[in-house]
Amino acid sequence: MYSDKIQSILKKKKIDVGDEVEIDSSKGKFSGLLMPRTAGAPDILVLKLQNGYNIGIDSKGTGVRLLKKGETKKHPPISHPSRGEIAILGCGGTIASRVEYKTGAVFPAISADELRAAFPELDTVSTIHSRELFELFSDDMTILHWKKLAEAVGAEIKDGAKGVVVMHGTDTLSYTSAALSFMLQHLPVPVVIVGSQRSSDRPSSDNRINLMNAVFAAKQDFAQVGVCMHAGTSDDVCHLHPGTKVRKMHSSRRDAFKSINSKPLAILDYRANRFEQLLEIRKRGDGGSLKLNTKMSDNVAMVYVHPGIRPELISKLDSYDGIVLIATGLGHIPTNPFNDKLAKPILPAVRQLIASGIPIVVAPQTIYGRLDLNVYTNGRLLKEAGAIGDGADWTPECAYVKLCHVLGQTKDMKKVKEMMEKNIAGEISERSPLD
Amino acid sequence: MYSDKIQSILKKKKIDVGDEVEIDSSKGKFSGLLMPRTAGAPDILVLKLQNGYNIGIDSKGTGVRLLKKGETKKHPPISHPSRGEIAILGCGGTIASRVEYKTGAVFPAISADELRAAFPELDTVSTIHSRELFELFSDDMTILHWKKLAEAVGAEIKDGAKGVVVMHGTDTLSYTSAALSFMLQHLPVPVVIVGSQRSSDRPSSDNRINLMNAVFAAKQDFAQVGVCMHAGTSDDVCHLHPGTKVRKMHSSRRDAFKSINSKPLAILDYRANRFEQLLEIRKRGDGGSLKLNTKMSDNVAMVYVHPGIRPELISKLDSYDGIVLIATGLGHIPTNPFNDKLAKPILPAVRQLIASGIPIVVAPQTIYGRLDLNVYTNGRLLKEAGAIGDGADWTPECAYVKLCHVLGQTKDMKKVKEMMEKNIAGEISERSPLD
Repeated sequence: MYSDKIQSILKKKKIDVGDEVEIDSSKGKFSGLLMPRTAGAPDILVLKLQNGYNIGIDSKGTGVRLLKKGETKKHPPISHPSRGEIAILGCGGTIASRVEYKTGAVFPAISADELRAAFPELDTVSTIHSRELFELFSDDMTILHWKKLAEAVGAEIKDGAKGVVVMHGTDTLSYTSAALSFMLQHLPVPVVIVGSQRSSDRPSSDNRINLMNAVFAAKQDFAQVGVCMHAGTSDDVCHLHPGTKVRKMHSSRRDAFKSINSKPLAILDYRANRFEQLLEIRKRGDGGSLKLNTKMSDNVAMVYVHPGIRPELISKLDSYDGIVLIATGLGHIPTNPFNDKLAKPILPAVRQLIASGIPIVVAPQTIYGRLDLNVYTNGRLLKEAGAIGDGADWTPECAYVKLCHVLGQTKDMKKVKEMMEKNIAGEISERSPLD
Repeated sequence: MYSDKIQSILKKKKIDVGDEVEIDSSKGKFSGLLMPRTAGAPDILVLKLQNGYNIGIDSKGTGVRLLKKGETKKHPPISHPSRGEIAILGCGGTIASRVEYKTGAVFPAISADELRAAFPELDTVSTIHSRELFELFSDDMTILHWKKLAEAVGAEIKDGAKGVVVMHGTDTLSYTSAALSFMLQHLPVPVVIVGSQRSSDRPSSDNRINLMNAVFAAKQDFAQVGVCMHAGTSDDVCHLHPGTKVRKMHSSRRDAFKSINSKPLAILDYRANRFEQLLEIRKRGDGGSLKLNTKMSDNVAMVYVHPGIRPELISKLDSYDGIVLIATGLGHIPTNPFNDKLAKPILPAVRQLIASGIPIVVAPQTIYGRLDLNVYTNGRLLKEAGAIGDGADWTPECAYVKLCHVLGQTKDMKKVKEMMEKNIAGEISERSPLD
């Protein structure tokens, strides 16, 4: 809400939120749509510029001129049904962020509803409705949040949504996309997770393009979990990544998300009505009705293998249901087959945990490429010890989520191994001739 | 050594190791240089084909014909001085590997001397001498191995080597290249670490190209630690990566090594006498004489931050000298600033460790990009807690090695932070306008 002072000035000038206005400020003249003020200093006017980005202007409300009444008001009510074709679920994150102007820090705070108001262009793509599930940084997401999110997606689908868009912070987005891929079985519609690398106050923000393309994607003919993020080749184009084969590969770039050991599912450009499939994708109506399986162990550890890693670090993990070893190379850990005097193998500790019934899953520290525990003696020793994952090309994050999922279904070591090493949701791709 | 039977057949035919021979086998006729048999079934003849790759032929020694006596024997002794210009140090790994034909598994076993014999082409690039330091998989390398290696490199330089090449397994190569970068201060000559992604028995082996280019690199006018690996653009070209900004980014591809947050130092092609510098590189004679500083803590842990990580996992690390948190996004961990009911922040555990005098260093899970603990509230909270690394663009591996190094110099928290956040060996690059 704007301050009483600002509200009174706007009222006098017959300016409403959503109107096109011009503002004189110490930094020059700006024109654009007047946005609602959801938080922060209530005297700062927020303007959506023609390039789609928001700025805050400290004009004290003076020097504001009405250019044109907001067009959105002319829409007949029917274009804003209480339920649209596409459901948008908000989980916080930069895509729904505001900047605290005092400190410059970014908070996830704009609700899905407010974001819809901020992007009237959404109406040109689809009818939508929205709901905010969580207000947190994605770094605070837990397995319990994944369950609640999966249930909310399931409810939307049950209620007739033709597609679901999940707005999510980017930091742990690929963990969540993997979790939904395992939890939402026999999906009948697209579930598109979308984030933004730059907050809406920055001219280079990717929130508009990503969200528009995500809603556009959710209308297409496919039925699996995808991640829609800026593709980097053009400002308008996004990639739809497979939910189980995607990773944030840069801390700040807009095209940070990459499909790992896979092509993207599709190239997206809502303006050009372009949905260019790059891979086979499961289609709507490809069988079954939605089965929600949210059972997951929340007691799995990830261990980063490195020179100097202490065997005790592994031994002490005996209270976990399962462990992911982020191993070197093709899936290696210190095993010391040559009996080097200085080496400190962790293989005995791994053997002991496996013998005590704790499954150990291997994932590649290299991120790219496939595990192969048959090439080198140290890999063979790890495989003989009963480690899981030979031949898999999953990311460490996806291996972790899958192990949580599988341990939610069974604690039987043999069954865990069987389920882990069989492709469930696209997380293990078949060997290609290029391998 | 070949079996007595094979040796007697070869003797009768006046064939020596190094001669060009032709062999009839069940799989066809092969010609190439006869290689020494260093291990494995002693009846298998090993042939270096004209394409540079080795094969093992089970011909029982029959059907072997001498084509041409080995040329290397004609070299005057002076071309093989006991000490050459370039020192090659062997640390095991695929580049010096043999295949155990019984099991198909690969062992590091060919000594540096044997490898020199296997690649007579080395003599066209430089005079060399070699020494084998370790016989192990690089996964078994420890901080004690790094120290011994640094001492061996130092000894070679003291004895007049114009450059040093270190043959190393690829799995932990970038940890070692970082370690040498911190340990070898005021380097007067190049130190080039080289590995091979495919063993010498495979037609696609990269060991010849990588080794040739590494020796070629070690003769150039620069004086820092670099990593020479297949560049991927052409079969002949290698990249020289900065020792502190390089990472194995694929489990099996020959061009697995990438410079991270940096260009490669140079493009190498020994055949074309091409050393194309892409960055400023420290030159020979750029100041000081070699200072060996091998003091390192071997008591540092790496922790991979992920949704569902348990605060106890952090709390239990109170016996370590220091910890690297491989954090999400710009350097984030679960902090729960919004007091979400389901979240389980690890920030309190991190605060407690720091308060007890254990430095906590942040590194990016995204691999690419720079940390920035000022953008989001959770980053600011981590910074306020005293975490180290704001603004750094190091890899998790390099952050780990640097923390081991710094903790070898001081345990004083304030000094540790100061040393960590100041660039020492190229591990933190200055912000570029593109950031």
